[in-house]
Amino acid sequence: MRGAVMYGPGDVRVDERDEPRILEPTDAIIRISAACVCGSDLWPYRGVEDMQWPAPMGHEYAGIVEEVGDDVQTVTPGQFVVGSFWATDNTCEICRAGYQSACVDRVPMGMLGAQAERLRVPLADGTLVATPDLPSDELIPSLLSASDVLGTGWFGAVAAEAGPGKTVAVVGDGAVGLLAVLAAKQLGAERIIAMSRHASRQRLAREFGATDIVEARGDDGVAAIKELTDGLGAHSVVEAVGTQQSMDQAIHAVRPGGHVGFVGVAHGVVIDGMDLFWSLAHVHGGPAPVRRFLPELIELIWNRKIEPGRVFDVELPLDDAADGYRAMDQREAIKVLLRP
Amino acid sequence: MRGAVMYGPGDVRVDERDEPRILEPTDAIIRISAACVCGSDLWPYRGVEDMQWPAPMGHEYAGIVEEVGDDVQTVTPGQFVVGSFWATDNTCEICRAGYQSACVDRVPMGMLGAQAERLRVPLADGTLVATPDLPSDELIPSLLSASDVLGTGWFGAVAAEAGPGKTVAVVGDGAVGLLAVLAAKQLGAERIIAMSRHASRQRLAREFGATDIVEARGDDGVAAIKELTDGLGAHSVVEAVGTQQSMDQAIHAVRPGGHVGFVGVAHGVVIDGMDLFWSLAHVHGGPAPVRRFLPELIELIWNRKIEPGRVFDVELPLDDAADGYRAMDQREAIKVLLRP
Repeated sequence: MRGAVMYGPGDVRVDERDEPRILEPTDAIIRISAACVCGSDLWPYRGVEDMQWPAPMGHEYAGIVEEVGDDVQTVTPGQFVVGSFWATDNTCEICRAGYQSACVDRVPMGMLGAQAERLRVPLADGTLVATPDLPSDELIPSLLSASDVLGTGWFGAVAAEAGPGKTVAVVGDGAVGLLAVLAAKQLGAERIIAMSRHASRQRLAREFGATDIVEARGDDGVAAIKELTDGLGAHSVVEAVGTQQSMDQAIHAVRPGGHVGFVGVAHGVVIDGMDLFWSLAHVHGGPAPVRRFLPELIELIWNRKIEPGRVFDVELPLDDAADGYRAMDQREAIKVLLRP
Repeated sequence: MRGAVMYGPGDVRVDERDEPRILEPTDAIIRISAACVCGSDLWPYRGVEDMQWPAPMGHEYAGIVEEVGDDVQTVTPGQFVVGSFWATDNTCEICRAGYQSACVDRVPMGMLGAQAERLRVPLADGTLVATPDLPSDELIPSLLSASDVLGTGWFGAVAAEAGPGKTVAVVGDGAVGLLAVLAAKQLGAERIIAMSRHASRQRLAREFGATDIVEARGDDGVAAIKELTDGLGAHSVVEAVGTQQSMDQAIHAVRPGGHVGFVGVAHGVVIDGMDLFWSLAHVHGGPAPVRRFLPELIELIWNRKIEPGRVFDVELPLDDAADGYRAMDQREAIKVLLRP
């Protein structure tokens, strides 16, 4: 089968890869309807993060179940499923507490390479959620988004305790940040400040529910948020970038007792202890436990309450994956969908 | 009047100071029944934190109201009161959210010097809480503790979300750590692990409710906590030291989705962003909003439900304050009470 493989920074090719097979009785094999390029795929692409090359790529996926192992009980061949970017048992104590991304049995889906025609999904019962029926084609981008980018933005908003009466600021206008705006809106936030200096992203942020746009960054960005909040800072800030500047901005823009939800992968970021001490902020984040939210997100998408798939502004055949990486790296695309 | 003044690291003297007077109509003057030396007073004493010398010292206090300004409504001369270590209006939006230590009008009581015979308390209505009656002498240490050290330990346990069914680990066996143990017990924690290698402090920790003692520190301490929690880590960890080692230990000892409450003043501490990301911990802390808890703490003490004053193992006349600093600096005393 065909699948995307990264050979080193900047070097993505679509190769012939081995057909995945059932290895464990808890596995499922799915035929990928759509996959995509993640912001986190750009870290190794840009040489910021090291990998063992060549590496099969992709951890966001939705598709049709083709085959299941003997122990799989909740999904059956022919069903359309969405899975989280960690395979998880969903039964251990950590999963039951809602932190499936730290499941004691977790397997990173990125190692299996979802930017491909087919995918082996370990721990299928704990990882996959089936849709009520086969989806119409126009629903597929939104369902795919639930696999990571929507689930991650959603977790950021939940970690930041976005909710009724709250002012929520979102640092980062990538797909995750934009979907954190959508999540904050769904969670009932009163005011949503999107930090963005790109017209097309600002437009999408507004369509997703942003009430205010702040173009300034760093200390100026913090000052702008303070000005919008009687000098107090936002109740909730979602950090969706993963750089020192964005993290500092988040911690400085939140009010005492407020919540920072951080879902940017924190490359080289350090948090000054004294800074955090005096901020009196709550800080919570990490790899999103998407599986916690999947049933609810699928239902919202299925019932056309949300359309997160709009973050995909470029769609390419799988064979053109390299172009997709390039477009995202150069910020020509917000997020690229790949169709095998 | 007599009052403790620090002239530089290691140099505390009790001097004749100006009598405090009502300066604002919201002020009260109280006659100090008892004050004490705080772990945070040791930072400048040890030369770790700079101050403008000479500095009047002390921010923990309980005593009798002698005089109030014209606008003071909730306390009257003759009442016994306990106040928080920040003077606060208790009416602003931040106070109403329970974060009085970041009140928009806050005044640090440390600047006013509570290790003295008398003390001016700004914003008396928002800062002081009166006891139901004049307390018997044996209640005074416990009531005094509510002013900071108990309130701070309590906040640490609340920030760590200690509660029923939870395993709570406390890093630090100073007075704050020991009172975080007491708080965790009161909040209903199922298992409380005190990290201490001092027999007398271990004993007090057990009396306050610790079910387990861990003597190991650093990575070994983390491993010991993991071993006590099926390899998962504690649900809640209170960090009550304020060093790099103690903060790292706290973040590494908490389970994914668990809560770190930190109340040690984080001198020189940095939190590695990637470490925090992968821990999936919640982190919350800072200067404790003691005023939020004062009414409840006073009631628990008044009704003899808790006896936090037991952390005072040395009591000295105010004139011997220098001996008190020395005893705490050299860990000969857990906490020193000063009687003017």
